[in-house]
Amino acid sequence: MLLTEKIVRRALEEDLGRGDITSKALIPDCTNSHGEFICNSEGIIAGIEVLKTVFRMLDKQVEVDSFIDDGNAGYAGMCIARVNGNTRSILAGERVALNFLQRMSGIATLTNQVVKKVAPYGCTVTDTRKTTPGLRVLEKYAVTMGGGKNHRFGLDDAVLIKDNHIKAAGGIGSAVFRARKKIGHLVKIEVEAETLEQVKEALDNGANVIMLDNMFAAEMKQAVEMIGNKAVIEASGGITPDTAVEAASAGVSVISLGWITHSMQPVDIKLELD
Amino acid sequence: MLLTEKIVRRALEEDLGRGDITSKALIPDCTNSHGEFICNSEGIIAGIEVLKTVFRMLDKQVEVDSFIDDGNAGYAGMCIARVNGNTRSILAGERVALNFLQRMSGIATLTNQVVKKVAPYGCTVTDTRKTTPGLRVLEKYAVTMGGGKNHRFGLDDAVLIKDNHIKAAGGIGSAVFRARKKIGHLVKIEVEAETLEQVKEALDNGANVIMLDNMFAAEMKQAVEMIGNKAVIEASGGITPDTAVEAASAGVSVISLGWITHSMQPVDIKLELD
Amino acid sequence: MLLTEKIVRRALEEDLGRGDITSKALIPDCTNSHGEFICNSEGIIAGIEVLKTVFRMLDKQVEVDSFIDDGNAGYAGMCIARVNGNTRSILAGERVALNFLQRMSGIATLTNQVVKKVAPYGCTVTDTRKTTPGLRVLEKYAVTMGGGKNHRFGLDDAVLIKDNHIKAAGGIGSAVFRARKKIGHLVKIEVEAETLEQVKEALDNGANVIMLDNMFAAEMKQAVEMIGNKAVIEASGGITPDTAVEAASAGVSVISLGWITHSMQPVDIKLELD
Amino acid sequence: MLLTEKIVRRALEEDLGRGDITSKALIPDCTNSHGEFICNSEGIIAGIEVLKTVFRMLDKQVEVDSFIDDGNAGYAGMCIARVNGNTRSILAGERVALNFLQRMSGIATLTNQVVKKVAPYGCTVTDTRKTTPGLRVLEKYAVTMGGGKNHRFGLDDAVLIKDNHIKAAGGIGSAVFRARKKIGHLVKIEVEAETLEQVKEALDNGANVIMLDNMFAAEMKQAVEMIGNKAVIEASGGITPDTAVEAASAGVSVISLGWITHSMQPVDIKLELD
Amino acid sequence: MLLTEKIVRRALEEDLGRGDITSKALIPDCTNSHGEFICNSEGIIAGIEVLKTVFRMLDKQVEVDSFIDDGNAGYAGMCIARVNGNTRSILAGERVALNFLQRMSGIATLTNQVVKKVAPYGCTVTDTRKTTPGLRVLEKYAVTMGGGKNHRFGLDDAVLIKDNHIKAAGGIGSAVFRARKKIGHLVKIEVEAETLEQVKEALDNGANVIMLDNMFAAEMKQAVEMIGNKAVIEASGGITPDTAVEAASAGVSVISLGWITHSMQPVDIKLELD
Amino acid sequence: MLLTEKIVRRALEEDLGRGDITSKALIPDCTNSHGEFICNSEGIIAGIEVLKTVFRMLDKQVEVDSFIDDGNAGYAGMCIARVNGNTRSILAGERVALNFLQRMSGIATLTNQVVKKVAPYGCTVTDTRKTTPGLRVLEKYAVTMGGGKNHRFGLDDAVLIKDNHIKAAGGIGSAVFRARKKIGHLVKIEVEAETLEQVKEALDNGANVIMLDNMFAAEMKQAVEMIGNKAVIEASGGITPDTAVEAASAGVSVISLGWITHSMQPVDIKLELD
Repeated sequence: MLLTEKIVRRALEEDLGRGDITSKALIPDCTNSHGEFICNSEGIIAGIEVLKTVFRMLDKQVEVDSFIDDGNAGYAGMCIARVNGNTRSILAGERVALNFLQRMSGIATLTNQVVKKVAPYGCTVTDTRKTTPGLRVLEKYAVTMGGGKNHRFGLDDAVLIKDNHIKAAGGIGSAVFRARKKIGHLVKIEVEAETLEQVKEALDNGANVIMLDNMFAAEMKQAVEMIGNKAVIEASGGITPDTAVEAASAGVSVISLGWITHSMQPVDIKLELD
Repeated sequence: MLLTEKIVRRALEEDLGRGDITSKALIPDCTNSHGEFICNSEGIIAGIEVLKTVFRMLDKQVEVDSFIDDGNAGYAGMCIARVNGNTRSILAGERVALNFLQRMSGIATLTNQVVKKVAPYGCTVTDTRKTTPGLRVLEKYAVTMGGGKNHRFGLDDAVLIKDNHIKAAGGIGSAVFRARKKIGHLVKIEVEAETLEQVKEALDNGANVIMLDNMFAAEMKQAVEMIGNKAVIEASGGITPDTAVEAASAGVSVISLGWITHSMQPVDIKLELD
Repeated sequence: MLLTEKIVRRALEEDLGRGDITSKALIPDCTNSHGEFICNSEGIIAGIEVLKTVFRMLDKQVEVDSFIDDGNAGYAGMCIARVNGNTRSILAGERVALNFLQRMSGIATLTNQVVKKVAPYGCTVTDTRKTTPGLRVLEKYAVTMGGGKNHRFGLDDAVLIKDNHIKAAGGIGSAVFRARKKIGHLVKIEVEAETLEQVKEALDNGANVIMLDNMFAAEMKQAVEMIGNKAVIEASGGITPDTAVEAASAGVSVISLGWITHSMQPVDIKLELD
Repeated sequence: MLLTEKIVRRALEEDLGRGDITSKALIPDCTNSHGEFICNSEGIIAGIEVLKTVFRMLDKQVEVDSFIDDGNAGYAGMCIARVNGNTRSILAGERVALNFLQRMSGIATLTNQVVKKVAPYGCTVTDTRKTTPGLRVLEKYAVTMGGGKNHRFGLDDAVLIKDNHIKAAGGIGSAVFRARKKIGHLVKIEVEAETLEQVKEALDNGANVIMLDNMFAAEMKQAVEMIGNKAVIEASGGITPDTAVEAASAGVSVISLGWITHSMQPVDIKLELD
Repeated sequence: MLLTEKIVRRALEEDLGRGDITSKALIPDCTNSHGEFICNSEGIIAGIEVLKTVFRMLDKQVEVDSFIDDGNAGYAGMCIARVNGNTRSILAGERVALNFLQRMSGIATLTNQVVKKVAPYGCTVTDTRKTTPGLRVLEKYAVTMGGGKNHRFGLDDAVLIKDNHIKAAGGIGSAVFRARKKIGHLVKIEVEAETLEQVKEALDNGANVIMLDNMFAAEMKQAVEMIGNKAVIEASGGITPDTAVEAASAGVSVISLGWITHSMQPVDIKLELD
Repeated sequence: MLLTEKIVRRALEEDLGRGDITSKALIPDCTNSHGEFICNSEGIIAGIEVLKTVFRMLDKQVEVDSFIDDGNAGYAGMCIARVNGNTRSILAGERVALNFLQRMSGIATLTNQVVKKVAPYGCTVTDTRKTTPGLRVLEKYAVTMGGGKNHRFGLDDAVLIKDNHIKAAGGIGSAVFRARKKIGHLVKIEVEAETLEQVKEALDNGANVIMLDNMFAAEMKQAVEMIGNKAVIEASGGITPDTAVEAASAGVSVISLGWITHSMQPVDIKLELD
């Protein structure tokens, strides 16, 4: 919650600047309003807690009641939350609340579409680090509300050995060996492999997770067979919602795609004041 | 620059967390690398200065040379910048730099497409406040690099009288009157009008800018005729890159659309290390 | 409110440092007190909300009731607010609260004196950017409580073309032209003019506001005639409360003076504990 | 320096907001300028280091050379510092630099006037906690540049026993006793006395400093005789530059007055660009 | 309290990072728990307020009731506080609360042991600046809860003239003279003396406090005799809980030792949930 | 480095407060000094980079040259680093630099002692979350410099299922199951087991790591046999440097102990100025 509060505070500071000059000039301070957050289109909702945080930060007297939990589907015309309190406060928070809610719901919705496509193959969908700077914790949360799971949160919570690391270490074998020597027993090691040879080398050296990077379906299938359940198999690299099924059908257990965070479209939600 | 530095710092803190455990384990501290930021697809580039800020904050020794200025078009395969320095530092900044650069260039590119469409009608394109929380200053900058202009930066730098303000004030006339009484002589007043009656009322009361909100083309044309050059005419509400021309051809001088910031797709840029 | 909270927090941190060692040593933690904020001299009060924020930040249990709204006149001996709660908390906030209240009321009071002088001429009084670093938002608010209006809040919310910009652009004409090309349709352009030639040039190029900088009354009158109502006319530069009437009587619609923020004297207000 | 940097950063953020839109529109990024900070009137200069910090924070390439040290007198027409570098950076820092420099020099100048008046009596001048919120460290520094000394920086660096503490503790004796029991051996204890009886009591209980609060000259003289050099004697309460001599001539060793910080007038300094 | 809140907030951010993934996965959000903070060993308790701050920051609904005041002795098995509320919140704060409480109580306990040893000699125990970076205000508070007093809080609240200052000033005499000329009347001057000659010089020049640095007991006794009550006498330098009595018995009034903050052992306290 | 800079900045702000009044009074601003950081006792050094950061933050002109890398042993009398620059800056940073260096080296030294004891058993030493609030990243780094490894950095980077989680989930089986369903494929799951039954249950449910909590040596041996290499085996709970060998000899692969961070003694290092 501490992180969310910081993000919301910054967003409010950004939008309010030196204050809402229009409301101050035109809305008497004692005016109260009711408002409803209404879906204009369907989508998986994410961000209800952020919505509440926005108004709590602006004005503790504003009440927000929600009628849906994050992760559930909203339909066009549905009232997802009701806000009640000082009109100036509601208008001050409106845009910021919507900006968060629409974006997070957009991510949850798109994730959910991909999740449904690949579910028949027993495949999990994860995000990447291609998130919007400053909003990662909210965007990764939205991914889980869409039914996806989270890849690394940052450079600090798992070892992911890529091309450049392999070169610097002088091969996959020595890279995995060195990493294991340095890191604690609670950190997993993932190796990015571009060829079947690399897959084999990663496997032989005990990588916990092997990422098949930008492989064709046929090659992925071979890799899947080679690995079996000796490591978790992740497909990554240029996967879009359209190509996700191809990767899933190759038998990988995880696909990761930046698309769900960087190319989503916001769910259309509006605030209607009485 | 102070604002940009804050945004970049937060993004680095978010991604680095307690540190890049992979690089620390595998890349010797004394290793240097060269890298090139390459466009994978064409687009208008924006964010070169942010890119430089990312690396300067991580490591003052890393050199970044750029080969294109913001606002110019990059083509597939073009090297837009070259980075040279400590390998750990370059890898630590890679993802953050790309996340900014791709997003900002995506906004510039989409803006530019709309700008070109409506330019024949002498119409200007502006953004809205539907930006990503925390990144508004960068996104609005990217809009200008795509040839657009900026609408309000926040609730504090112009008066925009909407439906709720009009109700609270008891009509457009008294709303404009009250606003003018409160605000300084350097602040403009814009009124949102949904009908021709409202347009007339806004005009009669001396609004500097009249926003035609969600009007059909025919209605917009009538409004344009009514207003002439007695006020700046802005079309807004649900405009997409596809419907922008319709609004422009109705004769409005400005169209504002959230689409260019909230629904853009990032330009595909990568970092290649030697 | 977010900005005010930040400013108040910093002021409290500054004054409390590592804690109020006198109260901790001498006042039992369970002691409560009542106190009254009393005017020692008359003046326009500004800062009641800041006063409340000071105590709310220190101790949510301290109650503050105010008996006057900002913008109204306090007289010598008047109790403007009453504070009730933990004695240590009240003593901890006393000085900070008074420092804000006295300064803001001083600005409101001085502004009001100037406002009254120039009101007969239909002239408006505004502040400048010559405010105390870090307190601008509060000082500009105090100006409005004294009946004045606000000039630009910062370098970002209006274009003000001065001498150096004119030189760099190669003339007033090209300066206004370039500015208009870059800025959005909600930003006004003001041009600073030192001579009647410059006034004419600014007028011909469509400046929204023309600032007569350091002109003599006779010259101002000529400028006023020349401009008519084709632009807002502002007098600025070295105006003091004493010389304000001279400028106003020349027919300008706005006078801006740094004096009301940088050379005011605080209203004498004290806290008396029972 | 850390504190100064924070204060300067906040001031720049306050003034720049989302950026200097005028300079960005009109001054090419590659333009350089020379500028001179010139005194328009005489005064004791304070704030040269702050001036340098302003420009260093904005742009490390801007060079500032100063021709006077803090604490020395500037005369009308004197160039106190020269600035050289990117024109946009210089214009961006101009107002903030002047706001600091004028205020700090105003405090140093007024302090110096009082110092000179009371010097013949061997009396020292100190400030109070009646400083501008957020700027105390700079204002107290300016006082020393004017030849004054500093009273407490905050509630944490000396014990000052006032009326309310005495009541709560049940008398001066028990107040001093309790304070001494709690505080460390490096903290001094000052007692505020409004009557000669209180002076005697404070003296008998070993106060290190006795503050004669709002006493008439005659009473002060009696107090001075009573105390001798058994404690430092400070006069305080409603002292102005005009009444300072009266207190000093009564024989007190220190006078403290809020006037030098809260009611000073800024020294008139300008920046002239070539 | 403001400082404590900042320290606690940082500690929570440090421990929670992007959130408690275990509790989120396993504990339903609606689960409540009771918990007891139990001493596993005896010791002087310090940090009850910090404990409450930890949970208040995480979740205002969590109730904390304490059964002991800071500065009192806890025994093995004693319940010192009870916590009641949302299980996730309690688990999220557990470690941070204990880390503070154990450390602060460890300092209070060790301080108290030294205090008791030297009390018969009328000697006071103080801390030093050898505290844990970032926690000084809490550690110095814990010292007072153990019956000790505080030495300087930082470099800003008393003058302590050491070897290097003496050299730079050209002798103790000129060092004390210069210091007195610069500092205000509420600041004490302490001089560090390594020899009896230096003690004499410090004494002759009116030092308020003389620190006997790393002296043998016999030498300290001579110094004590020489100084009498013309200055406060402090023994410092390499004093441990074991050697404290030796210094105290030499007649010094204060001993200062870093050991009580840098080498304490935490009191063993645990949280037991029902 | 960003995190380290923040920590160092806070430590400097804490110690400097409003500035080093002694140095300002006594050391001319133009004085330079050389100084040497000397070990007074032997120990593993950690914190050289922090030392450099301290002085770089205070004054970029101060040069620090180090003669030992973190993780190596310093001996009594050894000069580990040399500092050269402005005397005031060196004195301002001295205490803060030493506070970090002594503490971090103390942790590295104690860790190293435990590492050496258990190395013959092929056992790894890790820290816990019982670190000093605010310094975790530095303390965990110091552990690695002593040859240890890091356990979780916070509540966010691995799942650790304890007693309370097991109860809430209704058993180890369902706890592990639920955790795996929620968390990503790069996060390990550790289960805390207090009995052999729990060990078996954890093993059967596929825990990646099993923590033997507060078990006797004999029980641990049974657990080790039961688990084999089907999971990583960690011993924890009340382990001290003295009892570490007992756990190691039972065959566990990891022992974690809070003692190395919360009960270390600082290495005695001093700064000597020429």
